[in-house]
Amino acid sequence: MRQDKILLAHGSGGTMMRDLIEDVFMSGFDDEILSRMEDAAALDVPPGRISMSTDTYVVNPVFFPGGDIGRLAICGTVNDVATAGATPLYLSVGFILEEGFPVADLRRILETMRDSAAEAGVQIVTGDTKVVEKGHADGIFINTAGIGVIREGVSLSSGSCVPGDKVLLSGTLGDHGIAVVSIREGLTFDTDIETDAAPLNHLINATLDAAPNARCFRDPTRGGLASTLNELAGASAVSITVEEDLVPVRPQVRGASEMLGYDVFQVANEGKMVSIVPADEADAALEAMRNAPYGADAAIIGEVAEGPAGKVYVKTGFGSKRIMDMLVGEQLPRIC
Amino acid sequence: MRQDKILLAHGSGGTMMRDLIEDVFMSGFDDEILSRMEDAAALDVPPGRISMSTDTYVVNPVFFPGGDIGRLAICGTVNDVATAGATPLYLSVGFILEEGFPVADLRRILETMRDSAAEAGVQIVTGDTKVVEKGHADGIFINTAGIGVIREGVSLSSGSCVPGDKVLLSGTLGDHGIAVVSIREGLTFDTDIETDAAPLNHLINATLDAAPNARCFRDPTRGGLASTLNELAGASAVSITVEEDLVPVRPQVRGASEMLGYDVFQVANEGKMVSIVPADEADAALEAMRNAPYGADAAIIGEVAEGPAGKVYVKTGFGSKRIMDMLVGEQLPRIC
Repeated sequence: MRQDKILLAHGSGGTMMRDLIEDVFMSGFDDEILSRMEDAAALDVPPGRISMSTDTYVVNPVFFPGGDIGRLAICGTVNDVATAGATPLYLSVGFILEEGFPVADLRRILETMRDSAAEAGVQIVTGDTKVVEKGHADGIFINTAGIGVIREGVSLSSGSCVPGDKVLLSGTLGDHGIAVVSIREGLTFDTDIETDAAPLNHLINATLDAAPNARCFRDPTRGGLASTLNELAGASAVSITVEEDLVPVRPQVRGASEMLGYDVFQVANEGKMVSIVPADEADAALEAMRNAPYGADAAIIGEVAEGPAGKVYVKTGFGSKRIMDMLVGEQLPRIC
Repeated sequence: MRQDKILLAHGSGGTMMRDLIEDVFMSGFDDEILSRMEDAAALDVPPGRISMSTDTYVVNPVFFPGGDIGRLAICGTVNDVATAGATPLYLSVGFILEEGFPVADLRRILETMRDSAAEAGVQIVTGDTKVVEKGHADGIFINTAGIGVIREGVSLSSGSCVPGDKVLLSGTLGDHGIAVVSIREGLTFDTDIETDAAPLNHLINATLDAAPNARCFRDPTRGGLASTLNELAGASAVSITVEEDLVPVRPQVRGASEMLGYDVFQVANEGKMVSIVPADEADAALEAMRNAPYGADAAIIGEVAEGPAGKVYVKTGFGSKRIMDMLVGEQLPRIC
């Protein structure tokens, strides 16, 4: 392909679109099923129930410390598919490109996607690209959808948490949100804050091996831990109490959150997993998480109690208790 | 939800996003699996290979004669999944909304999506919504991904066409492209030209019942019949010749194409299917198509020959022969 910027004709269905697909996408992804260029991929899937999920990524800027939109687009959907207790297998990818987007940036994003997919052990098997006029999108938007096979006998649900269950968090809070906002706002810190974007399917799998009666997994992305726990408490009609001192947060993330006026419980994460597990499996689950990729800082951060249904509390080191509210209004648009 | 326009906070992950999902999406789609609000849907799938496909829809304008972006988003992906010889079962949906988009328009689009999904017999089981700032998208973009189960023993491929095979087309060419461009350009015709957007999974199924050795199915969307046949001829290393007089085209579509300077073979369709079938199954396939939904105008329009590999020809009523070229450059941006 000779052009160094995306043109409207690259989305036309004609010869220039064929060139874009063959030269940029096929060589970027290098997948055997994808390269058949059929309208649909024909896939072998082991027996079992199927987990399916989708997310669209509009993060701004596209490149940020520790990652880019391509890594988010793979990891985010892999993690969502895995939350059902599934082994993610196949992804679809849909691109919206703004006329004028640099082809070199697209190639760089495809490379990240290929590497992240390889790390997660998933295949990108089918795709689509649309191009819109300059000023009608913002560089690049990416949708991924994914499917996986649910482990035999596993049936996870956000409505299955019961009093006494423990709340596990796989690592530090807030890294992704603060990494993106820091580059957006031109902030600099003593030490780098990088996105935590990572595929957590292996971590979930290891946790399920150790805690086969785990109730559910959720990744605290937009809206942060606060949204996730409020949703779980609501779905299970229980209350959840988190011990503030037990929640891992990097000092520079805590500092930046305070400076910017954010509640770190509401800041987005892209490589963290919350799991609710029965008390008698909590220690085994924690050890499994800590030994799994991206789980070294895992901690038991709280506990499920009877009521009031749908309420989430934070207990401070001083013994006081406050409500952990869901975000009201907007905090960080286009964080993922 | 009290707001009548989409706000950035509707994509925040907080309480306003929860309100949007519960009030607009859940009540619009009313699906039992979707309403569980898990990060991934857990699905029962009959045994067999899986067909998977995705498309993103950026059509402009969003509403046009005979349909809207929602109908395209369902039918387009259903048709792609079905081209593998599959029964489409489940769809994911990803929305990108521009700040300020009217909630009433969104509800109207969701209604079309629900009705089109019901017509096709598929379930919308998982979704995602992002909101971007005003001026950074164009109203609404929709991605759908779909999965289905491939019929036992069926293995379709664009590379399997052989000399002697017949080319079937399920109906008239160009309706969708001309319908969209007519409203975009403010053109009026004596009779209405409406989009042909329609789910063709039942038509494909019926054709496969009648022609079990059908080589492949392709829907001639962006780039039109010309792109589809050129891709098939290339993949199979054969030539294809189409008899111009046998190709069904509505007179008003032919007239509009001529007036606008478009080659009707390059105009987009959203409810048409091309199938290549062995000669001895062609009549049965044609009859099955004609009796299937949206197939009344089906025709055998041409034939596969040995070479030159990758070439597509049009034979006119006068006996002359010209090349049917793929679109070079851009014709109708954002037609789907």
